Amino acid sequence: MSVGTLTGVGLGPGDPDLLTVKAVRALEATHVVSYFAKSGRRGNARTIADRWMPPGATELPLLYPVTVEIRFDHADYVSALSAFYAESTELLAGHLAAGRDVALLCEGDPLFYGSFMHLYVRLRERFPCRIVPGVTGMSGCWTAAGEPMTWGDDVLTVVPGTLPPEALRTRFLAADAAVVMKLGRNLPKVRAALADAGLLERALYVERGTMAAEVVMPLVDKRDDDAPYFSVVLVPGQGRRP
Amino acid sequence: MSVGTLTGVGLGPGDPDLLTVKAVRALEATHVVSYFAKSGRRGNARTIADRWMPPGATELPLLYPVTVEIRFDHADYVSALSAFYAESTELLAGHLAAGRDVALLCEGDPLFYGSFMHLYVRLRERFPCRIVPGVTGMSGCWTAAGEPMTWGDDVLTVVPGTLPPEALRTRFLAADAAVVMKLGRNLPKVRAALADAGLLERALYVERGTMAAEVVMPLVDKRDDDAPYFSVVLVPGQGRRP
Ligand SMILES: C[S@@+](CC[C@H](N)C(=O)[O-])C[C@H]1O[C@@H](n2cnc3c(N)ncnc32)[C@H](O)[C@@H]1O
Ligand SMILES: C[S@@+](CC[C@H](N)C(=O)[O-])C[C@H]1O[C@@H](n2cnc3c(N)ncnc32)[C@H](O)[C@@H]1O
Repeated sequence: MSVGTLTGVGLGPGDPDLLTVKAVRALEATHVVSYFAKSGRRGNARTIADRWMPPGATELPLLYPVTVEIRFDHADYVSALSAFYAESTELLAGHLAAGRDVALLCEGDPLFYGSFMHLYVRLRERFPCRIVPGVTGMSGCWTAAGEPMTWGDDVLTVVPGTLPPEALRTRFLAADAAVVMKLGRNLPKVRAALADAGLLERALYVERGTMAAEVVMPLVDKRDDDAPYFSVVLVPGQGRRP
Repeated sequence: MSVGTLTGVGLGPGDPDLLTVKAVRALEATHVVSYFAKSGRRGNARTIADRWMPPGATELPLLYPVTVEIRFDHADYVSALSAFYAESTELLAGHLAAGRDVALLCEGDPLFYGSFMHLYVRLRERFPCRIVPGVTGMSGCWTAAGEPMTWGDDVLTVVPGTLPPEALRTRFLAADAAVVMKLGRNLPKVRAALADAGLLERALYVERGTMAAEVVMPLVDKRDDDAPYFSVVLVPGQGRRP
């Protein structure tokens, strides 16, 4: 009996029509569809894939033990997560060893800040793996804003909002064009660092880019500090253009 | 009579199955399919879209007057290109004004270093415009390499290889993860700057990611300096991972 293949399936930024043809086919052909979700929730990846779910496939949700309740650099967070990834790895390995193909759903692109990567590095030595790249969340967001992001010689800097204030400021000072991911509770810190670096007036705020409840506005018009998980700040580049 | 809509259609990195469902539908529905190409060549975008071309649509190639023959910062290059963009704008405007929808093909994602942007900023005030985001070339390349690109707090720096040596070096010294676009004749300069910054051993070279003639290798194994237009260097991040 031959083993199954693990496929990391990039789903794109949220609009179900932004799956690639290859992603749709990968879902059609799989035995097991797996995805990360918070306990008690369906999970965003599963929601994006809804239209394309293969009838009769086994669903295998992987439920996070913790998400934002504990700080990311706290030792308890790290140990809870590594136990979770180890367990999830064995759940997937069980199906793969039994010859069943597993598609692991990934928002955006699987290899770009994706949870998929944690299982992939644990499984790639043991089973055949395949990856279907996807449209990133940031591409979905600058498309929602309708703004060209990088021109000519512009350097694009993609910064997680989780960085400390001084690191954010340094990155923004050096940026031609910037994307800030993982906003959430980091928004006030990000806003202050952008102001320090003189970029606040150029910054756009995009929430749930390409999803039903999409929001796009200049960051200066966003008065409150409530940013959901699916939100980014964009600073479009202003480089050379003939 | 109502005017037509301009749609920038992201085609992804090269594999025709990496078009999104939305891109395929945009092509199906259009009257005119336009694309940039060098004189005497079919153009890469047109080749990627081949499988999805709508029967009966009008094809409108836009032929570059110059590409790499003149240096990008030379005044002749800038004036030749701006005349070309102005003419191309009027060609598209003619169809749009006559009520015909125009799909402009874009490799990768339209708003990420895309030629599409030059016509878009000239037409968006005059006609309805729509953009279909695509999988970027860099996503296609790190997928080809099978390497997770950014973990946890990694900052991703995307650098055009056209920058001067000292600027490249500074960017690489500050990079957690890096992508170098627009390699071509810039490869020796990029290689030297990576070595200066201590990143050469970690760098991967990817040529025509997801296309038929794909090449992936450690940059140190690439001995010659011949890099085609469709090539990148990747320095995957090594950030926090539980
Ligand atoms: C863990 S990262 C995963 C990124 C994903 N793999 C990708 O390729 O975009 C999650 C972050 O991506 C950003 N993001 C992803 N999709 C988004 C969307 N549709 N709208 C706004 N932000 C999004 C948010 O900043 C979010 O905190
Ligand atoms: C003018 S930029 C256009 C980028 C495109 N809009 C995108 O989203 O990737 C062209 C550069 O992208 C990179 N590139 C795009 N697709 C690629 C592929 N399939 N393989 C290697 N490099 C690629 C190369 O560095 C090339 O010089």
